[in-house]
Formats: sequence, C-alpha cells, structure tokens
Amino acid sequence: MAIVVQKYGGSSVADADKIRNVARRIAASFNKGNKVVVVVSAMGDTTDDLIELAGKINPNPEPREMDLLLSTGEIVSSTLLAMALHAMGFSAVALSGPQAGISTDSDFSRARITGIEPRRVVKELDKGNIVIVAGFQGITPENEIATLGRGGSDTTAVALAASLKARVCEIYTDVEGIYTADPRLVPEARKLEEIGYEEMLEMATSGARVMHHRSVELGQVFNMPILVASSMVEKPGTIIHGGKSMEQRNKVRGIAHDMDVAKITVTGVPDRPGIAAAIFTPLARAGISVDTIVQNASVNNITDLTFTITEKDLTRAMDIIAPVAKEIGARECLSDSKLGKVSVIGTGMQNAPGYAAKMFQTLFAQDINIQLITTSEIRITCIIAEDKVKEAVKALHKAFELDKV
Amino acid sequence: MAIVVQKYGGSSVADADKIRNVARRIAASFNKGNKVVVVVSAMGDTTDDLIELAGKINPNPEPREMDLLLSTGEIVSSTLLAMALHAMGFSAVALSGPQAGISTDSDFSRARITGIEPRRVVKELDKGNIVIVAGFQGITPENEIATLGRGGSDTTAVALAASLKARVCEIYTDVEGIYTADPRLVPEARKLEEIGYEEMLEMATSGARVMHHRSVELGQVFNMPILVASSMVEKPGTIIHGGKSMEQRNKVRGIAHDMDVAKITVTGVPDRPGIAAAIFTPLARAGISVDTIVQNASVNNITDLTFTITEKDLTRAMDIIAPVAKEIGARECLSDSKLGKVSVIGTGMQNAPGYAAKMFQTLFAQDINIQLITTSEIRITCIIAEDKVKEAVKALHKAFELDKV
Repeated sequence: MAIVVQKYGGSSVADADKIRNVARRIAASFNKGNKVVVVVSAMGDTTDDLIELAGKINPNPEPREMDLLLSTGEIVSSTLLAMALHAMGFSAVALSGPQAGISTDSDFSRARITGIEPRRVVKELDKGNIVIVAGFQGITPENEIATLGRGGSDTTAVALAASLKARVCEIYTDVEGIYTADPRLVPEARKLEEIGYEEMLEMATSGARVMHHRSVELGQVFNMPILVASSMVEKPGTIIHGGKSMEQRNKVRGIAHDMDVAKITVTGVPDRPGIAAAIFTPLARAGISVDTIVQNASVNNITDLTFTITEKDLTRAMDIIAPVAKEIGARECLSDSKLGKVSVIGTGMQNAPGYAAKMFQTLFAQDINIQLITTSEIRITCIIAEDKVKEAVKALHKAFELDKV
Repeated sequence: MAIVVQKYGGSSVADADKIRNVARRIAASFNKGNKVVVVVSAMGDTTDDLIELAGKINPNPEPREMDLLLSTGEIVSSTLLAMALHAMGFSAVALSGPQAGISTDSDFSRARITGIEPRRVVKELDKGNIVIVAGFQGITPENEIATLGRGGSDTTAVALAASLKARVCEIYTDVEGIYTADPRLVPEARKLEEIGYEEMLEMATSGARVMHHRSVELGQVFNMPILVASSMVEKPGTIIHGGKSMEQRNKVRGIAHDMDVAKITVTGVPDRPGIAAAIFTPLARAGISVDTIVQNASVNNITDLTFTITEKDLTRAMDIIAPVAKEIGARECLSDSKLGKVSVIGTGMQNAPGYAAKMFQTLFAQDINIQLITTSEIRITCIIAEDKVKEAVKALHKAFELDKV
C-alpha cells in the first residue's frame, strides 16, 4: 500500500466546516487504499493572533518562548482534524511534531529539520490509522520546541514524505496550482501540469508565493514528487518533479514577480579586498536577507555597489550601512523603496539564445526602464519601478506566448 | 535559598493586563530572595472554548486527542507569563508539563501524576531563572500528553512543591482564602488563618470549591503547607497544614454546602450478597461518581438502597439503574434532582459529644427536613431540599458561633 502525505494550509482548516471538508478529502484518499499522513497548519489567523497577543505583553519576545507558544496552533488544528475523522468513523491519531519524531536544530523561529525518526508514524499507519501531524514544529537536542519559520508546514510535509518514502507529497492550498504568471495580474495565465524542481525554485525565490523554496529544495534533494492543488475544488493541480519531459516544451515556463523590492546603492566605494564583507556581514548578522547584488566595473579603483532587499528591512539596513559606508570611505548611500522585479523562468532557456534580448525589447516597447539585471542558468530578472510590474508581467506573458499551450 | 511554588488560576491570567499583574507578584517573591516556580492554568475560558470548538466537530471526542488539544491552553498562558517577566527584566523560562518532568498514567482526561523528575526545573532555578510550568498536564509512558482533570493545576503545583522540597505551595485564586462558610451565602463568614489537611479535605469533598481534594490529599501525604490567597489583593490567606494548634480552637471549623445533589432510591431490594456490587459496578464503569450511600435495615430480607450523585449524572444513572433494578428483583427506582447538602466540619468534633444533636436541632428549628445523614470522624452531613440549603448554612454558621473569633 502506497503512503501519501497531504498538507493543508491554515485557510483550509480555518473553521469547523472547513475542517470537516478537509476530513472528507483525507477520507477519500484513505478509501482509495492509501496509507495517509496529513500535515496541517494552524487554523486561519491563529499564528498571527498569537503573535499579536505576545506583542501586547512583550514587544520583543524571546524566540524560545515564542516558538513554544506558536507550536500550540498546529496542535489545536491537528487534534480537531483527527476528531473530525473520528466523527466520520475513521481511525485517526493526532501527533505533535516531537511525537512524530521530527528533530530540529536550536535556531528558534527558523529552525531546520535535522532528522525524522518515523517509527511512531509507521506504527500508527500499520495499525490502520490516518496520521495527522502538527506542522511547522520539531524538538531540539535540548528537548525544546522549535518552529520552522516561513514555509514550515510545507517543509514538514516534504521531509515526512521523504522519510516515509511516500509516493507523493500533496500540498493543498488556496490556489489551484502553479501558473505561468500570477492570475490576478494576467487573466490569461495558464495552470502548469508539471514543472521541474529547478524552475519551481526560481519561481519561488523570484516572488511566486505558492510554495516556499525550502520545501522545494527538500523535494529536489529526495526526488520527492510534490503536487500543488486546491483544497476547495476537485481539479488537477501542478506536479513539481525532476521528470524527463522538459526538453520538448516551451522553453519559458513562467513569469514571476515581486512587488516588495527596495534598493540601496553605495557610491564611490574604494575597490579593494574586504569591502563586500565589510558591507554585507553586518546585514547578515542583523538577519537581513540581501537578494540581488551588482557591482559596476571600477574606474580608478572606485566603484558603485548596489543591492536589493525587502521593503520592510530598508530603514534598518540604511541604519546599519550608513556608518559602514563612512568607515570604508565611500561617497554616499542612496535608497529607493518603490521597486519591483519581474523574472522569466525556464530550464530550456539556458541553451537557447535570444531570450534575454526578447525580454529587454518587450520591456523597452512598454517604455519600462530596467534598473538592474541578474541572471541564473534558467532565469532572467529585471528590477524595475514597482508601478510598472503589472504591465511588465502581462507584456512578457504575451511575448513568450505563455497563453498558448 | 528557599523554593516557593506559586499557582495562578485561569481568572488570574485572563488577559494581558492580568498576566502583567501576576508577573509583578512573581517578581516580588523573587526579589525577596526566593527561588520561584510558578504553575499556571489556561487563560480565562480557554479550556471551555476549546471544549466547545471540539464539540462542534465531534460531539464525543476521543479523550487522547482531547487531552492533546486542551494541553495547549496552559502552554499559551505559561509562555505569555514568561514573556511578561522578560519584559520586566527578569530571567524566566516557560516549560510544558513534559519538559518540567511531570509523568502521568494513561487515564486520559483524569490522569494521575505518577512521578516528577525535577532535574530540568532545578537546573533552570540554579541558572537564576524563574520557572513557569504549564499546569494540568503531563506525559504518559507511551509519550502521550495527558491532562489531570478537575483541580489539575493545583495538583501540579503541590506535586512540584513536594518534589522540589519547597518551603510552601501558594495557590492564588479569585477568593481570599478558606472561609467558615461561603461568604455569598453567609455575609458574617470569617476567613480562617489556618486549617488542617483533614478538615480541608472534608470541606472540599463537601462542596467548598476553592481547592480540589486531590491537591489537598497530596499536600497531606508530603506534609506540604499550602497557602490559599487572592491573586488580586494583598491580604493574608489561609494556610492548610498539619500543624499542632488545633486542639485549642473552636471545634467546628466551617460549614460547607453543595447545591448540586441528586438522589436515587431503589426500593424493595432483596437483601443478599452481591446486590450492592450489581448496582454500583455499572455506575462506576460509566464514570459516575456516587457520593453518599445509605441502606436501610432490612425487613424480611427486603431493603431500600439510597445514594446521591451530581445532578448532571442523574438521567444517565437512571438509564443504567432501571434495568439493573429489574434484573435483581427490586420494586422500583425513584429519583429526586432538587437536593443539596450541608456539612459541619471540624477535627475537634470527634471527641466532643453533642455536635450532631446541635446540627439536627438547628435544622429542625428552621423547619428543614433531613433526608439523609452521613458522618465521618470530623464531619456531619445532612442531605436536604436544595431550596433550603442557604438558610441551613446561615443558621448553622450562627448556631456554631463561627461568626465569633
């Protein structure tokens, strides 16, 4: 009997009716003869509500206590889901992250899964139980509860699927799959039947919010097929896999975008070893993620350094960078918070010329100024003004004929 | 440095302001040089809210899942309380029941504490931390979370105090201590400075709701002094202890009452061995607690058997007893749900005659009919009509001069 791991997000279990709906879907998979393991997020806005409550008591709560607090949200939803299955006559058992054997490191609020000991889960499956696991959490070597941070429950699901050698990891969410572009921006966007891990990773890190890149990376490492589909409607979703059918298809697979981009430029930077470290080490220590970094060719050993971050980190980053810039003898520090990025993604692109040129021409034809360009083997990204992102995505979607199958 | 265990009930931590108030009280005890361990209940109505939510999903939820669900309430309040202490500049750590080393049996929803391994708590105290422990919960030998049922957090507190050899276990609640009678019924009721374990046990099992008898029993076994006091006002409470000063004082210590009494009488019961077992075994199996049992002297080997239970169990108990009564050849099954009980309690009573007579005369003078009488060494209880309980308590309080010091 094949093992199937399913994951349901918070909006899919937001109230008693939705929990019953999810229970029916789980039961259907079980009735098909699968052994079913379900990973569940906290109900609706529970996590945000707990964060708000904690903020009323302590504006800067200890991560250790915060994690112990937040871990309760997934325990509540998992027990209620088990109860819903019991009420329908199915045998089910709810397990906390520690009970499910999920070990993490001690990096509270963004812990990494270090291993899974699936003995208890296997035992419950062998007894004929549907196993409901509280997502987003695990236990540290010091017997503390840690949460996994963004994308946590997806990561729990893929990690469990890998350790159980499941046939597939099914991620049920409030969208119907992975689209060629955000359907809210591009009504003609098509749902993809399948997409490769690499492409999905580029989509996720380029702004597509459906899946966090952590869980996709994990799927790639263990070659675990991941199905992304709707928890509300019965429609085929998108399979993320490492499959073979990729060469034949359209070389560009999707247009990703992100409205939440800010840019910092340090001008007049002396071009000598150690400068990049001097600038980026204090940002990393402050937990600020830097996305794109561009350094101009230096003239007279003086260069400009530009990098992008999320808008919310801008004020903090400027506070950190300003004294550093002074110290290293740079001229000035400039920032712009009204930026966005648009990316063209596809595995086939790397060996086919002309994609970058087509992208730039398309943006030029729309009179959109490109501020920065970065590329990977399967992605081209342009940083542009935030208020131009929407028309850029629409134009690129059309130019690369993504509306046609 | 002495260890002090404090326990705060749900109404004392019902919102952010109340949590801050409790944190200030804990800090005050810590600043006096105590090592402080705090046991906390779930905030306000959290437990009832979770039970209601579960009821919407499954009217008859599995106790195992219910316990895992309910255990989250105390984890939330304990982490928030630790955060409040952090915000005030104190070192504090919140521990779940399992983290605090609390082991229980596997009798879900009413588990018993089987042992405490206080290593982690001691380690945190030695580091200078205030330790906040989630009450009401522990871990079973099968690595399941179990809750302790009624009076659970008080039991956690007394058990922790015993295992840590604390100086005192302080129970902070919404009343100021133990009174000679319920002050809502008897305005002249006095707060007792101290009371013996035995007396407190009789008070608790006779209807005084301040403390559950489980925690008092545990205090008695380990000779752990228990202070009951208000979490809101700074006033001396009542010390429950096994002290020596009892002989000198008023022999009657308090009047307890309980409005929630129902009676079942099985008439025409053949008086032969095994009859009592035939009646009470199925009730015990159904989890129905039987309080008072009275069997009349038998005439012609036929007797009447009367017992009391709580009102909420009456319908279920009658459904169980009716077929049993038929089977054993009894005449009929009668019930009365509108009863209450009133008890006179005091250690000194056992060697001093006349207390029972005085109680009966007092009730007679109020024209109150006594339906059943039971006594222990330090208690006399009369079952009377529910609507007579209030005036009975007032009259007895006066007759035994409890309003005078």
